[in-house]
Amino acid sequence: MKKIGVLLSGCGVMDGSEIHEAVLTLLAIDVAGAQAVCVAPDIPQHHVVNHLTGEEMPGETRNVLVESARIARGDIKPLKEIDTLGLDALVLPGGFGAAKNLSNYAFRGEEFEILPEVADVVGSFYKAGKPLGFICISPVIAAKVLAKEGVEVTIGKDKKTAGHIGTLGAKHVNCQVSNIHASLGGKVVSTPAYMLGPTIREVAKGIEKLVNAVIALA
Amino acid sequence: MKKIGVLLSGCGVMDGSEIHEAVLTLLAIDVAGAQAVCVAPDIPQHHVVNHLTGEEMPGETRNVLVESARIARGDIKPLKEIDTLGLDALVLPGGFGAAKNLSNYAFRGEEFEILPEVADVVGSFYKAGKPLGFICISPVIAAKVLAKEGVEVTIGKDKKTAGHIGTLGAKHVNCQVSNIHASLGGKVVSTPAYMLGPTIREVAKGIEKLVNAVIALA
Repeated sequence: MKKIGVLLSGCGVMDGSEIHEAVLTLLAIDVAGAQAVCVAPDIPQHHVVNHLTGEEMPGETRNVLVESARIARGDIKPLKEIDTLGLDALVLPGGFGAAKNLSNYAFRGEEFEILPEVADVVGSFYKAGKPLGFICISPVIAAKVLAKEGVEVTIGKDKKTAGHIGTLGAKHVNCQVSNIHASLGGKVVSTPAYMLGPTIREVAKGIEKLVNAVIALA
Repeated sequence: MKKIGVLLSGCGVMDGSEIHEAVLTLLAIDVAGAQAVCVAPDIPQHHVVNHLTGEEMPGETRNVLVESARIARGDIKPLKEIDTLGLDALVLPGGFGAAKNLSNYAFRGEEFEILPEVADVVGSFYKAGKPLGFICISPVIAAKVLAKEGVEVTIGKDKKTAGHIGTLGAKHVNCQVSNIHASLGGKVVSTPAYMLGPTIREVAKGIEKLVNAVIALA
């Protein structure tokens, strides 16, 4: 059975992994007959956002691995152990966690930095020929790490983010929410998900296609 | 478009709503062409559990409505406003939140109490002829509120919980994870979900059937 890593970044769209995208990824992997293996970095969240009000909760601190474990029902490993897990591919769901915890794209835009252990994993999976899937905002990570490879990604049609992707040296391609864009021999796949929405059933279609494309080459 | 309430109890299987069950409920409602409306009580969680270790986090306090908003992407209403929402039906996902926040079944077993505003909503929806769906452990709430109506529910095949349901005056019926049990003219539907597992694709089948059965009579 193919083992597909799912790199989480917390639990909640405003400060962690987008929960629907993460769960739909786990569903599509299971439906395809592969095994999902959740991983997350063992680091503090950038901050905690009250998802009812959208306001930051100033006194609150949470850990990315611990909160990601909510989505994984406790079955999750620290990202630093990823080399021991025998993974065949890796998928990164979106949510602001990808742009606040896995990277600082939400704050720095095209000047952003990626958490070194995340950049290392993306680069090493690509070099090893293992497929990578990027959902929602997480394609900015592929755009930065794989710019020199000539990667193409989609985040839907958001002009500002697409412009940043171009500045990084990668190419942005417009795409519908229910579809995917594949690049670098099909080994790097992306889908807009909630960068476009509008509802979960459309997001689910794109994620299912992405997961199937990733598994097909894993 | 039919409006289907989804009553959440936090965000995470060990102290709130089971996230997969909640998201699969939202997906099935959208796929069926209905509108999901998330609600949750505005109360403190019973406690907070570290989902990586399974241990309680003693210093931590979280609010059920605020944490449920993570699953709802911010689009959620306080349960006390439910009468203003024009709902046609209500679904209760599982997770320990149903047994720790919506009720105290996890601690009191068959002697448990249900949060009054939850018991009121379940009772009033039933009296109004609006369908109710109960997932995973949440059928114990139906068993207590609707015992006098002669309700039948399933939580899968767990003998202890099934015994409690009988003691309450309701009837337990064994059921596979991918299936549902309908009672009281089809207006009360339940499915075992993660009371049985084993994986998300099987849980998804039962939840999709439950949502479709609820919507059909809404």
